Formats: sequence, structure tokens, C-alpha cells
Amino acid sequence: MKRTLNLITLLTLSLFTAASAQQKTLPAKGLAVVAIGGKFKPFEFQRHAVGDNDIQIDILYASICHSDIHHVKGDWGKEEFPMVPGHEIAGKVVAIGKNVTKFKVGDLAGVGCMVNSCGQCEYCKAGLEQYCKDVVLTYHDKDQFHNNETTQGGYSNNITLTEGFAIKIPATADLKKVAPLLCAGITTYSPIRYAGVKKGDKVGVAGFGGLGHMAVQYAVKLGAEVTVFDITEDKRKDAKRMGAIRYVNVNDSAQLKGLDNSLNFVLSTIPASYEPNTYLKMLKIDGQMGIVGLPPYAVMPNIPIDKLIWQGNRKVFGSQIGGIKETQEMLDYSAANNIYPEVEIIPATATAVENAYKNVLDGKVKFRYVIDMKTLK
Amino acid sequence: MKRTLNLITLLTLSLFTAASAQQKTLPAKGLAVVAIGGKFKPFEFQRHAVGDNDIQIDILYASICHSDIHHVKGDWGKEEFPMVPGHEIAGKVVAIGKNVTKFKVGDLAGVGCMVNSCGQCEYCKAGLEQYCKDVVLTYHDKDQFHNNETTQGGYSNNITLTEGFAIKIPATADLKKVAPLLCAGITTYSPIRYAGVKKGDKVGVAGFGGLGHMAVQYAVKLGAEVTVFDITEDKRKDAKRMGAIRYVNVNDSAQLKGLDNSLNFVLSTIPASYEPNTYLKMLKIDGQMGIVGLPPYAVMPNIPIDKLIWQGNRKVFGSQIGGIKETQEMLDYSAANNIYPEVEIIPATATAVENAYKNVLDGKVKFRYVIDMKTLK
Repeated sequence: MKRTLNLITLLTLSLFTAASAQQKTLPAKGLAVVAIGGKFKPFEFQRHAVGDNDIQIDILYASICHSDIHHVKGDWGKEEFPMVPGHEIAGKVVAIGKNVTKFKVGDLAGVGCMVNSCGQCEYCKAGLEQYCKDVVLTYHDKDQFHNNETTQGGYSNNITLTEGFAIKIPATADLKKVAPLLCAGITTYSPIRYAGVKKGDKVGVAGFGGLGHMAVQYAVKLGAEVTVFDITEDKRKDAKRMGAIRYVNVNDSAQLKGLDNSLNFVLSTIPASYEPNTYLKMLKIDGQMGIVGLPPYAVMPNIPIDKLIWQGNRKVFGSQIGGIKETQEMLDYSAANNIYPEVEIIPATATAVENAYKNVLDGKVKFRYVIDMKTLK
Repeated sequence: MKRTLNLITLLTLSLFTAASAQQKTLPAKGLAVVAIGGKFKPFEFQRHAVGDNDIQIDILYASICHSDIHHVKGDWGKEEFPMVPGHEIAGKVVAIGKNVTKFKVGDLAGVGCMVNSCGQCEYCKAGLEQYCKDVVLTYHDKDQFHNNETTQGGYSNNITLTEGFAIKIPATADLKKVAPLLCAGITTYSPIRYAGVKKGDKVGVAGFGGLGHMAVQYAVKLGAEVTVFDITEDKRKDAKRMGAIRYVNVNDSAQLKGLDNSLNFVLSTIPASYEPNTYLKMLKIDGQMGIVGLPPYAVMPNIPIDKLIWQGNRKVFGSQIGGIKETQEMLDYSAANNIYPEVEIIPATATAVENAYKNVLDGKVKFRYVIDMKTLK
């Protein structure tokens, strides 16, 4: 009897939830891949509508992060499709819930890699929501706060999320360049701050792509002497232009000479296979190496612990993006200091995005593709 | 003609050096292994005699470090034989050079892993001689400051070295327990200080042997709540007796539950294969992992960089022993706070040393064998 009642209750609840969910959806459209490594296609889907604490953003720009490509290709494990990538989003607030205080309609707002978290754990309380075990990622995730809906990213026309995870964009910001700050900006700003980089420090930036070129700008702004490491000659002038004092093509071993024990901090943004000890050896005593670039699992670099011992009294740490509070700090700092990514604007078409992916993989992008989402058909 | 003259000069110099070296030797005897993994045998050899800046120590106690076994077995690469191991040495000063000011005849003195270094490089100047590229190790090394003589360690009756690398032992110290401080003591004291361990911190000590049981005592003395990790039940009571609040047998996965994100610092002293991520996962945000245990190269553990990123905002570092200044600080601190290893005294015979090695490898030692060198025949 009890079981029957429970079943009835469950069915009623399910129907109610379904009905309720149906009433609370927002039609959206974007560019999705429908299978692993597949092609982009126009895709229509539903998002949860604006709740009491939520804002709705009409997306103006979404940029292409190397990690989007890793997800589309399944480099980091199983993924769910169709997938609308994109966790670097800038747009305009078009609706707000009744409890919202941080935004009003017409404000500019950004979204990065996260759209929600538990709010209760020690990480959330410390402003490090990225480490919350219940964090909801902007795409390729299930949103347990919204009936486990599949989250879809920024290569789309709109997004809804709790105001707490949206970042305020100053009205004076150069909006077409803001989107990459929401991931590439905070992912490099946070470890540079965590390592305590300061004026006069000798800083290395390994990997001079979307992340790396942001890291160079932050470190230079903080007064560090920056050395850039990459595997091509094509970006030498760009590094100097952004304020680096040295550019090292690591494919030419002669250029690495004399660099051991020379750096206070090195940040690895490298998204492919490499030898971490190349950079560990460059650290001075008390130096630090931050790692943010996550290569595919099939070629994940290792640090054998004897290398840590031989290069003792140097510290290594990984870092994931940054918390919401620090993301706001980074965005304000970037806008105030005119620190932006170098971008190439592309239209919101499958062809343009696929071409951009190819160029990123071939190391041909300088430095971030931004999709003009207003051009989405 | 010039070449002939040079040859003559060279020959004259060589003869002079040889004669000079012959005059400046000190007969010594000890226990040596004559081939990789071989047996110990009595061994007579020559050390350089006391120079102007040197002291001669009659060795009273030498203890057995796990690394002695690694060297004897060739776990860390090619070695030279005959080899007299031993870099944990305590004894009495019996002669001093004319420039010596730190010691007088009759003083107690200790020697650790190093007997000299360049004195000029940034590491030497910073009191971190262990990272000097010209450091001379107490044994299994060539002494470039003494005609490249092969250094021989403490399983012997005497040693000569520059006063700068000898450590003063307070007259009140418990001498038979002092030798292990010179390596096991400083190797754990240094990273605990480097990590800034303080009262109330939650500290893990992985590997509860000669190094581990020193780490526990230092961390407890600093006011930390200490958890010990090992692979046996045999040492549970010892850990508690030394002040640990928890003992975890990592072979029983149930005992590991609930420990993730719980430690401010973990020190790995493990000399064998293990999974570093087991301990990385236990670190709280801003926590640190120090690594001092160096397993054989054939089974060297790796840290894949994705583990550092997933457990981001935690720092990992390796550490080698400690500099001379800090070694003196550690010895004074240990004696003042009655922090000593737990030791078992054995006679200076080949049989006793070989039996001790076997027990160390079988995890049966509690916690350090000390050879009474006065019993050397």
C-alpha cells in the first residue's frame, strides 16, 4: 500500500515537474556538433527560463577557446552530444528575475566556465567555486539545479543563469574583445596572482596562444621581465610587441641555453605534449611553476618526483580558471588597464567556426577567434 | 719546444702533487662493499689529512639511512666501488687545522650528506649548499678540492673535512642518537619549515620510517595535528606514542575515507613506488605536498599534470636535505627540545650491518640503526 502511494506521489511529482519545466523554458539557437569530432550544424534547443535570481543575456560575442576543441574531439573523455560549445561569453542583459540586484536590463554581462555551484561548501565560501564538486559548467554538463538539463554554451543567441555567476562588464569596455577574458583572462590572471608575481620578477610564459598572450600582458603590467616560450618563429614579433624581453623557440635548443635557474615563475599554458622538466629546471630557488594548459589525456605530461627533488625548493601548482569574485576583479583590472586579447572577429557560421578550429590546431590563430553572435542565422 | 716545456711542467707538477698528496693522507678503516649489491668487508683506505681549515673527527656513531641501501644496490644509477657508506656521523674532534675557529679538540661534531661545496655560487651564498653544482657528497663522490679523491662515508673510524661543513653538537646531546639527525633530521625539518607548518595545521606524514618518525616529532612539536600513513599495522602504536592523532594503513582503503581535502601539508618520505595523487587529493586549498623520499629510478612515481590541475591551488615541491646553517639550527632545535630518533645500536661488523639492511628493506626497523663505530675491528 505504502509503495503504491509512493508511486502515485512520484508520478504526480514527475508530471508536475515536467509541466513546470515546460512552462519555464526559453527557446535558444546556436551552433552544435552532433557527434564526437563532428561538424557544426545549426541547432535549436531549450534553456530554463529566467528564475527569480536569474538574468537572461542576449549573447553578442562568444570566443573560441582551445578547450572547446578538446571537448568536441573527446580529448578529455566521454562527452554528450549535441554540444554547443563556448564558455567565453559577452552580451547584454535583456531580462531579470524579481530578486536580482546586481544587474538591470541593458547592462553588459559576461559568462565564463561556470553557471552555478552549491554555494555551501568550503570552496564556494572561499570564492573558489571552480573546485566545488557540484559546480555546473557552462556547457558539456548537467545542471542539477534545473532538472539536470544539459548545459549548452555560448555559440548561441542567449543564455540564462543565476546573477551570482554573471560578471559585470563596464560600459566603457571594448566589448568585442571582452569574451576571451572570461576564460583565457582569468585562467592566467589567477595563477599569476596566486604565485605573487611582482615588479622585477623574471617570468616565463610557456605556450603563446590565447592563454599565453594574456599571461604576458598581465605579467608585463605587473612589472615582470617576461620570457615567452613557443615552438614557432611566427610569433616572435608579437611577443616583443606585447612587452616580452625575450622570445625562445624551444625547438631550437641553442635558444634554451643559459636559462636554467633564471626564472621566479613560469606559467605553462601548453595544450599539447611537452616536457615539464624543461621549465622546472629554469626556476630559481623558491621559484614556482603554475600549470593551466591541459593537454589531451593520451599525451598528458608527467612530472617524475625525482625531478622535483633535484630541483628542490621550487613549487609547482595547477590552477583552474578562477572564482567568480576574482573573475570580476580580473575583468575590472583588465578594462582599467586596457588589457585585452588580440582578436579576429568571425561570423556565426558552421564554416567559419570549423575553419577557426583548424587554424587553432595549426597554431595559426593570433590570438583569439571571437564569433559575432549577432550574425547567427 | 713550447709543447715539450709544457709536458715537463706538467710532469713536474704531477710528481709534486703526488708527493704532496702522499704526505697529506690519513689512514682510515671501515666497512665497504666492493661491488654493486655486494657484501660488506673490512676495508682500509686513505683520507686527505687535516688541512688548515679542516678538522679530523674520530667517528663514534654512524647510522644507516635507507639511501645507503639505494647506493649499495645501484638503485639511482652507476656507483663506484669499494664504497664505505654513511652520511649520518657523530664523533669527537681530535685534530684541527691552524685556521679553524669553530671547533677545538675534544668538541663533539657531526657530519651529514655534504663535506664541501664551491662557496661562491648563489646557492652556497644562500646557505643552500646542497644545490651547488660542485657540492662534494660525504661518500660515493669525487672531491675536486682534494685531487679528486673518492669520498668515503661514516661506516669508518675517522673523517676529515673543512670546518664549515661540520656541525657543532652540544655537549649535553644524547650522542648515540645524534647521527640520524644529520640526514633524517634535516631532510624532514627543512621542508616542514619551508612549508611554514604552524600550530593547528593538519599535517600528514607518508612513510613512517627513519625520516617519517622524525617528521612526526617535528610537526607535533610545532603544534600540528599529525596523521601518519604507512603500509603496516606494526607501527600504529609507535605513531600514537610520538603524538600522531591518527594512523592510516593505506593498504586498507577504508582507512583513507574522509581524508580528501583535509590536510594543510603532507610530507612524503616514501622510498618505494606509490601513487602521489593519493596524497595530493588530501590537500586542502592552499595546501602543500613536500617530497623527500626518492624511490629507485625503476619505479619512480610520476605526477601527471592533470592531477595538479584538478587539485589546483595546492603546491608540490621536492626538497633535498638542507643547507649547513639550517642543519645547525635543526640540531640545536632537536637537542633543546629533546627530539631524537628512536635507535637500535649495533656493532660495527659486516654481519650486523647486512642484517640491519635486510630489516630496513623488510620494514622491520624501529626506527634507525646506529653503528657503534668504536667496536670496529
